[in-house]
Amino acid sequence: MTISQVDFFYLAMPEILDIGDGSQDALLVRVRSDDGGEGWGECEASPLVSIAAWCAPMSHSACKPVSASVIGRRIEGPDDIRALNRDVRAHSLDLLQADHTLSGVDMALWDLLGRRLDEPVWRLLGWPRAYPKTAYASVLFGDTPAQTLEKACRIAAAGYRAAKFGWGPFGAELTADEAHVRAAREGLGPEVSLMIDAGTVWGEDVEAASLRLPVLEECRVTWIEEPFVSGALGAYAELERQARGSVRTAAGEGSHDPLMARNLIDYGGVGYIQIDAGRVGGITSAYEIARYAERRGVDYVNHTFTTALALSASLHPYAGIERSHICEYPVEASLLARELTAEQLPLDESGRVHPPQRPGLGVSPDPEAIRRYLQPVEIRVGGRTVHTTSEL
Amino acid sequence: MTISQVDFFYLAMPEILDIGDGSQDALLVRVRSDDGGEGWGECEASPLVSIAAWCAPMSHSACKPVSASVIGRRIEGPDDIRALNRDVRAHSLDLLQADHTLSGVDMALWDLLGRRLDEPVWRLLGWPRAYPKTAYASVLFGDTPAQTLEKACRIAAAGYRAAKFGWGPFGAELTADEAHVRAAREGLGPEVSLMIDAGTVWGEDVEAASLRLPVLEECRVTWIEEPFVSGALGAYAELERQARGSVRTAAGEGSHDPLMARNLIDYGGVGYIQIDAGRVGGITSAYEIARYAERRGVDYVNHTFTTALALSASLHPYAGIERSHICEYPVEASLLARELTAEQLPLDESGRVHPPQRPGLGVSPDPEAIRRYLQPVEIRVGGRTVHTTSEL
Repeated sequence: MTISQVDFFYLAMPEILDIGDGSQDALLVRVRSDDGGEGWGECEASPLVSIAAWCAPMSHSACKPVSASVIGRRIEGPDDIRALNRDVRAHSLDLLQADHTLSGVDMALWDLLGRRLDEPVWRLLGWPRAYPKTAYASVLFGDTPAQTLEKACRIAAAGYRAAKFGWGPFGAELTADEAHVRAAREGLGPEVSLMIDAGTVWGEDVEAASLRLPVLEECRVTWIEEPFVSGALGAYAELERQARGSVRTAAGEGSHDPLMARNLIDYGGVGYIQIDAGRVGGITSAYEIARYAERRGVDYVNHTFTTALALSASLHPYAGIERSHICEYPVEASLLARELTAEQLPLDESGRVHPPQRPGLGVSPDPEAIRRYLQPVEIRVGGRTVHTTSEL
Repeated sequence: MTISQVDFFYLAMPEILDIGDGSQDALLVRVRSDDGGEGWGECEASPLVSIAAWCAPMSHSACKPVSASVIGRRIEGPDDIRALNRDVRAHSLDLLQADHTLSGVDMALWDLLGRRLDEPVWRLLGWPRAYPKTAYASVLFGDTPAQTLEKACRIAAAGYRAAKFGWGPFGAELTADEAHVRAAREGLGPEVSLMIDAGTVWGEDVEAASLRLPVLEECRVTWIEEPFVSGALGAYAELERQARGSVRTAAGEGSHDPLMARNLIDYGGVGYIQIDAGRVGGITSAYEIARYAERRGVDYVNHTFTTALALSASLHPYAGIERSHICEYPVEASLLARELTAEQLPLDESGRVHPPQRPGLGVSPDPEAIRRYLQPVEIRVGGRTVHTTSEL
């Protein structure tokens, strides 16, 4: 089949708050083939900019819009998607945002192919079976330790076996940080796994991070996530050395290509590599990293804070790795994110999420929900319309 | 003074060719302060996408448009620009293209401040003096070795002391590559330094690159540039090991923050770190890398293929490092790029370019040239105009 049409739908909540909740908007991608096939994907981060990376006029041979490598392309099997992925990287080498745009397109292509071949994406990728993953409730810290405690109690009561607290006030002041971490542990009780997300707050300041190691160890925190910015490989390696395995580092959501993730593994020495399939180049790149992590004995974890569509796309790439059994599970997503799909990925009685068995990604957006939150986009360059939102 | 207005001007040649010439379009940034000050900068790569990263609606607290950290900001000295730079990185952490947009804004802020304080930017940065740099003529390979030979002869006749050939057909086939490199050396004669730019053609394939080492050594090539993609740190380190100093690797133009460049130095072991101030985050980030390279004994080189404005902005960050004496000098730039500024940066009789002594960047765009090539842009989201090109 030939890719004949690709459409972008920018959704947003009526009001976007200045908080670390990345589910307040979404960019959906719909791919259609000349023989009536359809697939859906989702790009993480800044919908307008990722649309621009699709439709921008060419600057030169290595700075083409993503569309130049997609429209008119034949897709018959997984290798065709992989080849398309490589071509986008080469032809959009100097277009920085292209990786995020590619991510949603790549997901939609796998969804399209899976529906066509009547197979779930994880099977197309080559996994013989899909293992359930232990969902961790992913939430923001409360503004106060009392609020963090209350959130933790609710999560434990809801039956989660793991939880992660992040962003909010965390990272600014040692004593307050200690109180928040202890509140989280107290609320979860002794049995529920606890992770902490510092949201890159310490830049590359190893000392600031290491001051938190005692409380993280005391509260048996599984990982400290993004203590540093993505590229701070030396800082990651040094914190790992100082922690001596008592707490591991986790990072990778900022990776926008597989090599960035591999460098965090090889030079940063992270214990967990966290990949957002909506940023890294889609399912193709996420799967490549999952296989690499497996070979290097590092645990792969998805990064997902938004919709069931994004969650499904993030599960397929590592569905077949039994040892990588942890899954970020959005529990504070916006109304937009929750309403987007009819299908959800509910937890089983053991707090685990199962990669879908349905064809493709196994999750589709509800057209009514898209209409409800749609932000039409129109872009004109030099008097010519280069983008306008399509009909649903 | 307070930053009151920032405007973007997208310029393009009437026809954009599918070749590796990055000077076929340009994105200019004009910054104005509330007390009548003005400064100009230039973003490399994909004008429309970088404009979108300026004006996109906020997605969440770490995915704001670049404008959110710039408009209304007080700038009194260099530290204020550095603080602004840090804030853009933090508040636009998840907006990938933000680094390219920041680059042009940052340049314009240094230009504004230099004009205000009546100092060239290199002096504001703290360099006690500015050393002239040996310009290398930066050109694309010919389609055939005979064309490459002819180009090389012309460059030598024009008095250049160094030249770099890149892109075009290079990298695909060993015998043809050897013929091109020998043609370049033959045309330049024995005295002119020769560099080769592979334009990331080998991905991370060390074997493909090492097959070219004998001819590079035979023709006394100073560096092989971008044999691999930016993140392939292990491949760079391995090629350096195999070359044993006979030819050094050069890379860095793909860096969009200082850490990416530092990782190429620390883990890739590159001999030359090449920074495009229009991509890496502007003069602030370029200077930070120049200082780091100096401490690590690595040569810093600019990456510039376009205008005199971009060339000037790329010279200031390493103006004060005597040992880093090589400068990429555009000689095949488009008419747009050549006509953009009244001031040029001509070579002296020794083939050297001098960092400007005039205030700010020392180079300003000509409004008539801007009008000639201007592509007006209009962007609407949700029925609201979020961007429209300003009056000049």
